[in-house]
Amino acid sequence: MDDFRIEHDSMGEVRVPAHAKWRAQTQRAVENFPVSGRGLEPAHISALGRIKAACAVVNAEYGVVDKDLAEAVRDAANEVAEGRWNNQFPVDVFQTGSGTSSNMNANEVIATLAEERLGRPVHPNDHVNAAQSSNDVFPSSIHVAATYAVVHELTPALEHLSSALEEKAVEFADVVKSGRTHLMDATPVTLGQEFGGYSAQIELGIERLQSVLPRLAELPLGGTAVGTGINVPAPGWAASVIAELSRTTGLPFTEARNHFEAQGARDGLVELSGVLRVIAVSLNKIANDLRWMGSGPRAGLGEINLPDLQPGSSIMPGKVNPVIPEAVTMVAAQVVGNDATIGMAGAAGAFELNVMLPVMARNALESIRLLANVSRLLADRCVSGITANADRLREYAESSPSIVTPLNRYLGYEEAAKIAKQALAERKTIRQVVVERGHVADGTLTEEQLDEILDVLSMTRPT
Amino acid sequence: MDDFRIEHDSMGEVRVPAHAKWRAQTQRAVENFPVSGRGLEPAHISALGRIKAACAVVNAEYGVVDKDLAEAVRDAANEVAEGRWNNQFPVDVFQTGSGTSSNMNANEVIATLAEERLGRPVHPNDHVNAAQSSNDVFPSSIHVAATYAVVHELTPALEHLSSALEEKAVEFADVVKSGRTHLMDATPVTLGQEFGGYSAQIELGIERLQSVLPRLAELPLGGTAVGTGINVPAPGWAASVIAELSRTTGLPFTEARNHFEAQGARDGLVELSGVLRVIAVSLNKIANDLRWMGSGPRAGLGEINLPDLQPGSSIMPGKVNPVIPEAVTMVAAQVVGNDATIGMAGAAGAFELNVMLPVMARNALESIRLLANVSRLLADRCVSGITANADRLREYAESSPSIVTPLNRYLGYEEAAKIAKQALAERKTIRQVVVERGHVADGTLTEEQLDEILDVLSMTRPT
Amino acid sequence: MDDFRIEHDSMGEVRVPAHAKWRAQTQRAVENFPVSGRGLEPAHISALGRIKAACAVVNAEYGVVDKDLAEAVRDAANEVAEGRWNNQFPVDVFQTGSGTSSNMNANEVIATLAEERLGRPVHPNDHVNAAQSSNDVFPSSIHVAATYAVVHELTPALEHLSSALEEKAVEFADVVKSGRTHLMDATPVTLGQEFGGYSAQIELGIERLQSVLPRLAELPLGGTAVGTGINVPAPGWAASVIAELSRTTGLPFTEARNHFEAQGARDGLVELSGVLRVIAVSLNKIANDLRWMGSGPRAGLGEINLPDLQPGSSIMPGKVNPVIPEAVTMVAAQVVGNDATIGMAGAAGAFELNVMLPVMARNALESIRLLANVSRLLADRCVSGITANADRLREYAESSPSIVTPLNRYLGYEEAAKIAKQALAERKTIRQVVVERGHVADGTLTEEQLDEILDVLSMTRPT
Amino acid sequence: MDDFRIEHDSMGEVRVPAHAKWRAQTQRAVENFPVSGRGLEPAHISALGRIKAACAVVNAEYGVVDKDLAEAVRDAANEVAEGRWNNQFPVDVFQTGSGTSSNMNANEVIATLAEERLGRPVHPNDHVNAAQSSNDVFPSSIHVAATYAVVHELTPALEHLSSALEEKAVEFADVVKSGRTHLMDATPVTLGQEFGGYSAQIELGIERLQSVLPRLAELPLGGTAVGTGINVPAPGWAASVIAELSRTTGLPFTEARNHFEAQGARDGLVELSGVLRVIAVSLNKIANDLRWMGSGPRAGLGEINLPDLQPGSSIMPGKVNPVIPEAVTMVAAQVVGNDATIGMAGAAGAFELNVMLPVMARNALESIRLLANVSRLLADRCVSGITANADRLREYAESSPSIVTPLNRYLGYEEAAKIAKQALAERKTIRQVVVERGHVADGTLTEEQLDEILDVLSMTRPT
Repeated sequence: MDDFRIEHDSMGEVRVPAHAKWRAQTQRAVENFPVSGRGLEPAHISALGRIKAACAVVNAEYGVVDKDLAEAVRDAANEVAEGRWNNQFPVDVFQTGSGTSSNMNANEVIATLAEERLGRPVHPNDHVNAAQSSNDVFPSSIHVAATYAVVHELTPALEHLSSALEEKAVEFADVVKSGRTHLMDATPVTLGQEFGGYSAQIELGIERLQSVLPRLAELPLGGTAVGTGINVPAPGWAASVIAELSRTTGLPFTEARNHFEAQGARDGLVELSGVLRVIAVSLNKIANDLRWMGSGPRAGLGEINLPDLQPGSSIMPGKVNPVIPEAVTMVAAQVVGNDATIGMAGAAGAFELNVMLPVMARNALESIRLLANVSRLLADRCVSGITANADRLREYAESSPSIVTPLNRYLGYEEAAKIAKQALAERKTIRQVVVERGHVADGTLTEEQLDEILDVLSMTRPT
Repeated sequence: MDDFRIEHDSMGEVRVPAHAKWRAQTQRAVENFPVSGRGLEPAHISALGRIKAACAVVNAEYGVVDKDLAEAVRDAANEVAEGRWNNQFPVDVFQTGSGTSSNMNANEVIATLAEERLGRPVHPNDHVNAAQSSNDVFPSSIHVAATYAVVHELTPALEHLSSALEEKAVEFADVVKSGRTHLMDATPVTLGQEFGGYSAQIELGIERLQSVLPRLAELPLGGTAVGTGINVPAPGWAASVIAELSRTTGLPFTEARNHFEAQGARDGLVELSGVLRVIAVSLNKIANDLRWMGSGPRAGLGEINLPDLQPGSSIMPGKVNPVIPEAVTMVAAQVVGNDATIGMAGAAGAFELNVMLPVMARNALESIRLLANVSRLLADRCVSGITANADRLREYAESSPSIVTPLNRYLGYEEAAKIAKQALAERKTIRQVVVERGHVADGTLTEEQLDEILDVLSMTRPT
Repeated sequence: MDDFRIEHDSMGEVRVPAHAKWRAQTQRAVENFPVSGRGLEPAHISALGRIKAACAVVNAEYGVVDKDLAEAVRDAANEVAEGRWNNQFPVDVFQTGSGTSSNMNANEVIATLAEERLGRPVHPNDHVNAAQSSNDVFPSSIHVAATYAVVHELTPALEHLSSALEEKAVEFADVVKSGRTHLMDATPVTLGQEFGGYSAQIELGIERLQSVLPRLAELPLGGTAVGTGINVPAPGWAASVIAELSRTTGLPFTEARNHFEAQGARDGLVELSGVLRVIAVSLNKIANDLRWMGSGPRAGLGEINLPDLQPGSSIMPGKVNPVIPEAVTMVAAQVVGNDATIGMAGAAGAFELNVMLPVMARNALESIRLLANVSRLLADRCVSGITANADRLREYAESSPSIVTPLNRYLGYEEAAKIAKQALAERKTIRQVVVERGHVADGTLTEEQLDEILDVLSMTRPT
Repeated sequence: MDDFRIEHDSMGEVRVPAHAKWRAQTQRAVENFPVSGRGLEPAHISALGRIKAACAVVNAEYGVVDKDLAEAVRDAANEVAEGRWNNQFPVDVFQTGSGTSSNMNANEVIATLAEERLGRPVHPNDHVNAAQSSNDVFPSSIHVAATYAVVHELTPALEHLSSALEEKAVEFADVVKSGRTHLMDATPVTLGQEFGGYSAQIELGIERLQSVLPRLAELPLGGTAVGTGINVPAPGWAASVIAELSRTTGLPFTEARNHFEAQGARDGLVELSGVLRVIAVSLNKIANDLRWMGSGPRAGLGEINLPDLQPGSSIMPGKVNPVIPEAVTMVAAQVVGNDATIGMAGAAGAFELNVMLPVMARNALESIRLLANVSRLLADRCVSGITANADRLREYAESSPSIVTPLNRYLGYEEAAKIAKQALAERKTIRQVVVERGHVADGTLTEEQLDEILDVLSMTRPT
């Protein structure tokens, strides 16, 4: 019996574990939502802490609460922001759609911690949540967490991956290979050009993230219950909180241009998720190319070698598989699915609030985290260790019938097609067939010109 | 001016093109919904006609309308069912979510046609739509059209494809090749086994369609406005209409077990769409395998040859591409997207009606049609003309280091792994390395056993 | 230093935490895949244990391993199946796409546990994994886990929910209310009919699960590396293992009809996921109806009362929200997203293996778990406590202009429309306007007939 | 027989309809791809024409073709761009994944038209397609068509809708109503604030489109076959073509920064589609709010009146439904599905080309078109005609128990909650209960203060 204590809220009494920092409303939510067994993402709890700290600081300035209480709340909130009390956030992510239960969880934990510092009662609603509502704080916390993770985790991870790819682009700049379109032999490219293309995809991904940040960094804070800002002490309050938040995080948060849009909809998260999906799609393409080029060792393309990381098979001895690209494609599929969840959730707002917030948070923050982690893995455990089988690559390039292409301008497309087909049918080189069909004899081309035109590396750098 | 005539409905007068068979409500809808420029799928119009005809027959039996009028309506409706008046269905698919505009379009066209036969007024609501509501007729028409298309178009197309694949499974039964897992060389399979696997996928797709038919063939007919069956003349009416419909179509339609479920939700279409997606996913896998095996001609796997259908490139002469598998994968992507639309639409029902019906119809019926058409194409213009490069395939099979696998039981997994790696590193065969490492000399294996164990075709038929 | 021990595998030595039951390959995977921070679902680990136990039993029968070793392996595997060693499964779900790392994790943990029992070396590959491959065991484990969860968790949860809804259907059988189509007032229904419709949706969901079970319960076991069954000791081996597995689980597992389909594709999971999505879509519709009917208390529909579970707002005192329906719609969105992931993963198979297995497992098993948990919550914490505001409901029913509908057959649709519009415009009842327009005076209807026709409860039970 | 003529290409002879402007390769494609029955979007054909015209102009400058031929090609291409020859584009959208068949269709039609002007042979490949490849032209044509449609169709339509919403925001600025969060009564807002929020959503949609334009307007032109620019006459050629194209279209096209990214991936379209989905999600939210507010007339919320457009029911006389919002939500569902298709297609690139181009084009261009059309409809046939039921709205606002919220700062959250609950239970106003509980008597609040605090319109404009 003494493992519990009695707490109360506006609905009555609740038994709470004796040593829990949380109080009645958290406990009700724990009991109401045994759904997934998982709570908010740690980055999300941290963002809640950051917001509560900033609100406390500004609440003192505006006289909403007294200075001592504000400091106690701020310090407690900062501890939450640092992740020290993650184990005090037991509420399931599948809960009330406004995230009120998690907002109250934060309010209650911070109230208890502040009370311990201050030595007098701290009320979760009247003090910690003062001038706030779950309806502006909780969506703001998602945007804070997502902005933070995009700027400090995903962007650097993508930059790291882009660099790793770019290094290979330089290393393989002269490694000529057969291009492939429709998976069929095409005109030559260099392996470096391919890796340069991958690097460009990732760089564009970073640019895409940059382009959504202005809207992602817009916060509903100050709208309180329904966007009108009821119970906010004064007009500049929200701007002050957001300035404080920008100061403590170093991130360019702004106040929502329209507080009704900012609470009725969560379009900014849907937009972010769309960009995360583009990055997933980019990674999927790169991972597929890498594993196809590394296929073999003997019955595949065998163009490049991926680093050996672990035995590949529990039954086939000596087999090694492209496990990192596989993890990448699985992350891509997860991000595509998370994006579908976010889209459906984003479409479900009604009137003054979208009440699909926790599930949007979970999926957006997980997608960012997965993409960041797997991008680093791809760079460090795969790309940076890739080596090229240059001889095989050149052999492929030279055997592709499409190297006939530069002859179009001399012989026309249709004669060039005849040459390509004859070469293939008679297992000859393009050069041989051009000569056989009399195009040197008739003076259309010299042998020298032909050598120059048919040089595969030159074809990758047309002038 | 005289290109128009004046029609009226319960909201007043409307100008209708002089020679149009449709009337006021159709015309309003034409003007209200200039969205996509496309109307219902022809199969859907046909299903509306079939239902109207069946209702007319039964309405005469129940004395709802007189026999002459019923016959005129029935005959007119049958003409609609035959597709003769598709050009009289101008209403956009993006319209009222109940499909009322299209139901009224059918009622009006049939009323006009029946009136022409009968020589006296026929009212679209009181006569053609008698005992019906858009809310039971329109969703029923989707299920009728979908059931018809599944049974008479998609299933035969899949059977045709499965047969084409199975024929190749037989033809290639002894063509040994390297298995590939993770795209890496694995133990051998036969090309026939692969095609047998594809055929099995398609057969399972047919089985999946069969398993949803009982729910797809359940019709809301008889529920009228809200599921209660208000204005239906007598309890057995719906069952009679459905029996008549089953008789004329040869399809096993049944009455919805619960009419409130049957109008408030469209789960049966969501379920069907999920199965269409499985078939799309199956086709995607098969198409990818085929084009990878056919990749080359010189810088790819080059295991099989797909039929040449058309010049592949506007710039690279002589290039031929796997265009049918590409059409297949594009259809697969479309079906996956159509399925997402259907899922979102299916989730949006409210109270007594789901009002996303026309968009669900469009996407479900298009998916069925695309899958049916592309399955036949895949069979006739690709699979049936495939030939195998048996020598290359055997060479791959024999060179795969994974053929060491059967030695696990004699030498253990770890020694087998050493053999595979050594063979690869020293460019030797597995057999050579086994001998070199003394496993014959020490009596573990005889040369004869070794030959037997390492025979790649035998490995595809272990006993 | 002594916190680690040295293990080795076919690639060399690895440092493993001193007290870990796992060995080298698990450790490599832990280091290779720091992606999501989450491993396999517990139900999945359990299924791996069950399979390993069944294989051990049959391996002894077929003489693949000796009886003592087999018993030790079986007992160790059973402990894994019971969930006792979940903390020994540290490998991330985003890993090699075949799940080889998790299969080896199971092999290694079981080998260690068996070794402790047996007192002599047990090899993870040669003994625990004997006659198996990750490529047949790992997908089989997903199907075993999913079948188990569908039969023992999701189905009973749905039955429970269906019963709760059906009880309300009975309780509210005579509570008449306005039907709503397009959200607009329609002819009357009873609240019980609506709950009966919901119950029917859930019952159909159970039927849908039943219809996919035959394919879900088909196991790839026996195909080993590539579907050929290489290294399986004898033809009946797989059937014996599956019989043993069916015996120990009480579930009707069968051997894959085609082992190449069964490993090259994962269509059975895509199909299952499609059905899980239908259930999600059903729940979404029900949850939306419930919260709309419960909207208010004063500015909403106010038709029913959902149980109060917790304070609804951190700023608006006394507010109570429909938190359980919100959790339901968030689960629905998650399941829709998980389904998109599974679809994309299912489409990505190549040749003899789909290497998106762990991500398919995560999403399918999570969806089942979320749906099961939230269905019970919906039943117990929401549906069973719902009460109806019968007076308000009847008032709505009687005020709906659509109650004019039964007059169609007496007055025609157009006159009925005039009556409805006049009633609305002049704020009169339908009855008043019918009389005013002379339909009683002219003998078309008697006052008595009119009373009967316009009785709203009768309209819900037309004859 | 004489209805056909014989054409040839590099694969041989083909029978082509006698009067067709197209030639052999188009005809092959017509026969190869009887899949959907639909060709490219007209906007797409137009973009192909624009590109061909620009190439012709620049090809003359660079001496690739002679001036007379170039002019003939340019003029013919411009006719195609104007839509005059859409009926000469019979190739199905589900075709070869590079769009080569449609590129050749354009080449052939333009060659024929140019030949008719010029009086001498024009070759589709050597002349019309000179210095081009399907692999750079076709994806460029999608980006040209999409950029054009975004700038000239979707953006103006959204601006139009935003204005219509903003006008209502002004009109309804003082119409106070109950806020709704979780669909439950919340603190007041004005109807104007809600419409202002909708307008802001649409404005943000326009901003999102702007932010993707820089990447959407990047064209692969100049990369030709594989990105290397093989067969382009000189380095500045592509820049010149793009400058010409910018000049003729007035749109800011740029050359791809990396031509390998630009052909190997289609990420720019995936990104665009993600933004189209955000707009769909915004519209879905707005449409849902509108129809809920307009629900009734008597058994719904009845807060606003949507314009009556057409009879709503074939059975319920006088019923009028929110048909435009329904068309909007169906478009939203279609755009979400189209986006899923584009995502799957975008992930499927391999090496030097993504071969899912036509299906990406169809879905992206259709989404733009549907969103543009339905946005105008929503503005003109719904929003601009909306009227408010101001009395009912104010009544709701005043009856909401959440108007107790401003008392938090005077009485604390918990006492305020007691007041709200008591008011609800005893069917009293908040004001009554505050007085009854002695908060005026004890001097905490004066009657005057109370009036001011509880004024619902003031609550929407807190200071």
